[in-house]
Amino acid sequence: MENSKKRLRQRLYRIIFESDTYTGRMFDVWLLIFIVLSIAVVMLESMPVVREIYHSKLISLEWFFTFIFTIEYFTRIYCAPNRKKYLFSFLGVIDFLAIIPTYIAFTFPDAQTFIVIRAIRLLRVYRILKLYHFVRAGNLLLLAVRRSLRKIFIFMMFILILVVMLGSIMYVVEDGKNGFYSIPLSIYWAVITLTTVGYGDIVPVTALGKFLATFIMLLGYSIIAIPTGIVSVEMSRTFKDTTESDKECHGCGEPNHTPTANFCRICGARLDQIS
Amino acid sequence: MENSKKRLRQRLYRIIFESDTYTGRMFDVWLLIFIVLSIAVVMLESMPVVREIYHSKLISLEWFFTFIFTIEYFTRIYCAPNRKKYLFSFLGVIDFLAIIPTYIAFTFPDAQTFIVIRAIRLLRVYRILKLYHFVRAGNLLLLAVRRSLRKIFIFMMFILILVVMLGSIMYVVEDGKNGFYSIPLSIYWAVITLTTVGYGDIVPVTALGKFLATFIMLLGYSIIAIPTGIVSVEMSRTFKDTTESDKECHGCGEPNHTPTANFCRICGARLDQIS
Amino acid sequence: MENSKKRLRQRLYRIIFESDTYTGRMFDVWLLIFIVLSIAVVMLESMPVVREIYHSKLISLEWFFTFIFTIEYFTRIYCAPNRKKYLFSFLGVIDFLAIIPTYIAFTFPDAQTFIVIRAIRLLRVYRILKLYHFVRAGNLLLLAVRRSLRKIFIFMMFILILVVMLGSIMYVVEDGKNGFYSIPLSIYWAVITLTTVGYGDIVPVTALGKFLATFIMLLGYSIIAIPTGIVSVEMSRTFKDTTESDKECHGCGEPNHTPTANFCRICGARLDQIS
Amino acid sequence: MENSKKRLRQRLYRIIFESDTYTGRMFDVWLLIFIVLSIAVVMLESMPVVREIYHSKLISLEWFFTFIFTIEYFTRIYCAPNRKKYLFSFLGVIDFLAIIPTYIAFTFPDAQTFIVIRAIRLLRVYRILKLYHFVRAGNLLLLAVRRSLRKIFIFMMFILILVVMLGSIMYVVEDGKNGFYSIPLSIYWAVITLTTVGYGDIVPVTALGKFLATFIMLLGYSIIAIPTGIVSVEMSRTFKDTTESDKECHGCGEPNHTPTANFCRICGARLDQIS
Repeated sequence: MENSKKRLRQRLYRIIFESDTYTGRMFDVWLLIFIVLSIAVVMLESMPVVREIYHSKLISLEWFFTFIFTIEYFTRIYCAPNRKKYLFSFLGVIDFLAIIPTYIAFTFPDAQTFIVIRAIRLLRVYRILKLYHFVRAGNLLLLAVRRSLRKIFIFMMFILILVVMLGSIMYVVEDGKNGFYSIPLSIYWAVITLTTVGYGDIVPVTALGKFLATFIMLLGYSIIAIPTGIVSVEMSRTFKDTTESDKECHGCGEPNHTPTANFCRICGARLDQIS
Repeated sequence: MENSKKRLRQRLYRIIFESDTYTGRMFDVWLLIFIVLSIAVVMLESMPVVREIYHSKLISLEWFFTFIFTIEYFTRIYCAPNRKKYLFSFLGVIDFLAIIPTYIAFTFPDAQTFIVIRAIRLLRVYRILKLYHFVRAGNLLLLAVRRSLRKIFIFMMFILILVVMLGSIMYVVEDGKNGFYSIPLSIYWAVITLTTVGYGDIVPVTALGKFLATFIMLLGYSIIAIPTGIVSVEMSRTFKDTTESDKECHGCGEPNHTPTANFCRICGARLDQIS
Repeated sequence: MENSKKRLRQRLYRIIFESDTYTGRMFDVWLLIFIVLSIAVVMLESMPVVREIYHSKLISLEWFFTFIFTIEYFTRIYCAPNRKKYLFSFLGVIDFLAIIPTYIAFTFPDAQTFIVIRAIRLLRVYRILKLYHFVRAGNLLLLAVRRSLRKIFIFMMFILILVVMLGSIMYVVEDGKNGFYSIPLSIYWAVITLTTVGYGDIVPVTALGKFLATFIMLLGYSIIAIPTGIVSVEMSRTFKDTTESDKECHGCGEPNHTPTANFCRICGARLDQIS
Repeated sequence: MENSKKRLRQRLYRIIFESDTYTGRMFDVWLLIFIVLSIAVVMLESMPVVREIYHSKLISLEWFFTFIFTIEYFTRIYCAPNRKKYLFSFLGVIDFLAIIPTYIAFTFPDAQTFIVIRAIRLLRVYRILKLYHFVRAGNLLLLAVRRSLRKIFIFMMFILILVVMLGSIMYVVEDGKNGFYSIPLSIYWAVITLTTVGYGDIVPVTALGKFLATFIMLLGYSIIAIPTGIVSVEMSRTFKDTTESDKECHGCGEPNHTPTANFCRICGARLDQIS
């Protein structure tokens, strides 16, 4: 009895959490289709023209998808080897957040919109693809971005201070008129300008305001180079680290050598070409 | 008889498909002029002011160009050594798509606009230029872009999920008003903001909406660095691969030499050209 | 007496200028909280809705913060080992500029807004963080930016000349109408277009104007690459300089080793740490 | 007589064309001031508010500057060692174009605006600076840009074809309404969107149009990486070429060696460190 339960859990685990079996892969494909469809339903529901005609049908569909995802969620909990670990893992939390809005929508109708959090579940697509090169490319990207985060964070701190200063100056220059009604609004304008978004909903009107705006634009044009530079360099480093490992030391196993190395930089043994 | 036919095909082939003879080059130049003119005709035809006065003349010209391109197309089929290969090659399909709209326009007048597909035929300009450096630069660019595609694709997947989430949040925040009438429209806004296009046709109006928009803009400002970083690194690698690795030292095996090197910079042995 | 005074100064110095003691860190944390709150007060004061109701309360709060910062400023002067050096240091000047607007606002009410100069004081956050990696990342960024400045400056000179030319041409093309009322306004438009901000407050209306605008946009699209390229290269160099050149081989003099290398990759000799 | 004329020419040459004497440097400084002032006069003249009041005074000033520049131009011709070379050099042509508009303005008043061509003369600022590092940085930038030109040109060809296609599709999708009145206008819109300028003067209105616009924006967001990548790589190469020349071969004088080189890659002689 205990044994058959254990075997059931193991089989379910292979189907739901892995994708190396035919059933497992089919499960993932259908899950993705259901995720996409359930997001489509929320989008359609939000469109006034569609809602007017198909409201009740869309609500039914939504309950159907939420029902399926709820079953899936509890099955995942059931068959996870380490339940606590799954429940508090990134994907586990997303799985939970993806079903909760429909239930909460009874009391807070707005909550329903947050079903789109299901979009994050699309990340599971990687499991189906399981193409070595895609996974590796994704990991490299992530690694490079993570390596850049500290520098980007410092840069963003600087941008925030800059934007507060520029917004305040423009608030004084435009004298609280022409859309620059308060400092927060002027900061909003400064961000729009510095990031080169340029909605045009707030625009300097005075001559001095336009003159300053010109400088802010040129400044934004120059500093947009900084995050790009940071990411480029970190990517270059990350990719290099991983591509140059075509030599391996026989002495210590160290795989990370530059192409011009003759000797292992760790143990000093002579290197031989592998590739 | 058979022989003269074969010789005719060969002569036509050299004129139409190649450009190493004077006649061949002249053929290409005139073809390009005709392509540019026929695109100009379609553009003029689309301008209300011009159409009113010159409608019939423009239609005649269009038929004239289509007639010429049709003859050219059949001549290409006639003299191609491997007809099937030509018909289903990229340029062969474009040649076909470039003449078909005029004929279809009898039944679907809108189809006529798609004559602009002829613009793709301008790619043939490379054949005239046939400048070694241009072709090589083009190939390097293409190779670098192709190498980046996988990473760009993963990045785009991430952007799509992000944009769906951000659009939905803004739909809730702006309460389905002020242009954020539905989730798809809010996603459209999120793309406009994240890519720093910033039309300004949809703009947040509530304080919270503007606050969130500020963060989305700064986010867009940071992640625009990622595709640039990807392409920069792949280009750097591609260009390096092609300029450095064509020599190898027999003495020490060092493969990393500049193109003008005669001697190995590590052991001093004489280098021989490989490529 | 003299001795106890000296000890007091030293103790105050450790609290205010350093952050290696518990009291010192607490001081910094509270200072930052006060800076953020005082900026928030100025922002709230600038919002018409808030000002109407809470005007007198906000003014009181502002005086409270200015009072605290004034005390802090004089204490800093008191306990600084080299007073002149502190007074004319970057942070010393900012400390002064951060308290002066409130006092000046008696005669020039607009000056009050410049209290936001306090935002620059947020730079002190680094002292709390005092995380080695953050400080190092910040320094590297600064160094790379400083190294790029000369090239960015030359580039900006070129952009200024370009923008004056393009603005003047558009002024003639649009005949001083449709927002292009003067050359300075047309230059303002040229900057908006070239930097891809694109407010849309001034937009070409004539066919020729739109045609030229198309070229200016494509030009801007191409030259945005230049500052990015400059910064990327300088960052790449700066980061490389600091990670690679701290070891040198005694055997062959090779200076280019990765930080984890123990043996020279050229001649195989053991490497000693220099730095 | 002849001799004194020759000496006068030589002295004038040193003053006007060079800046290694005090008089020569003063001449350059004043010339730049006059250029800036004369551009300011044209700008002021174009502003309706200013023109109304100071029209006659500004015209007088303009004639004054044109008079001075005319004298300067003829003196340059007089003392140039090779007159023909100067007349047809880049700066010589600019010097001519900078004085001609005022004279032509008698018959074509619009020509007057082109006095701003004088802005190009600001390039002479380099002569005053004559700071080695600035000139070198400028030359490096120019070299990198020139090296990128071929690839940028190919990229722009591709963008042009893309923009013609996208514009035509949007013209059909938006059915020649909502600002997409003709194919050229739709191409204008496509450029605005692809370059992320986003004026917002033409904006898709239909659902399908907005859907397509979303893709075009994401496409533009991706391909903006290509020119940046090209320039980054070429800059990286250009700067590397020029910084790595701190070793020089005693055998053949070749200065261009990588930092890891032990032997000259041209003649095979052992390299010694210089720096």
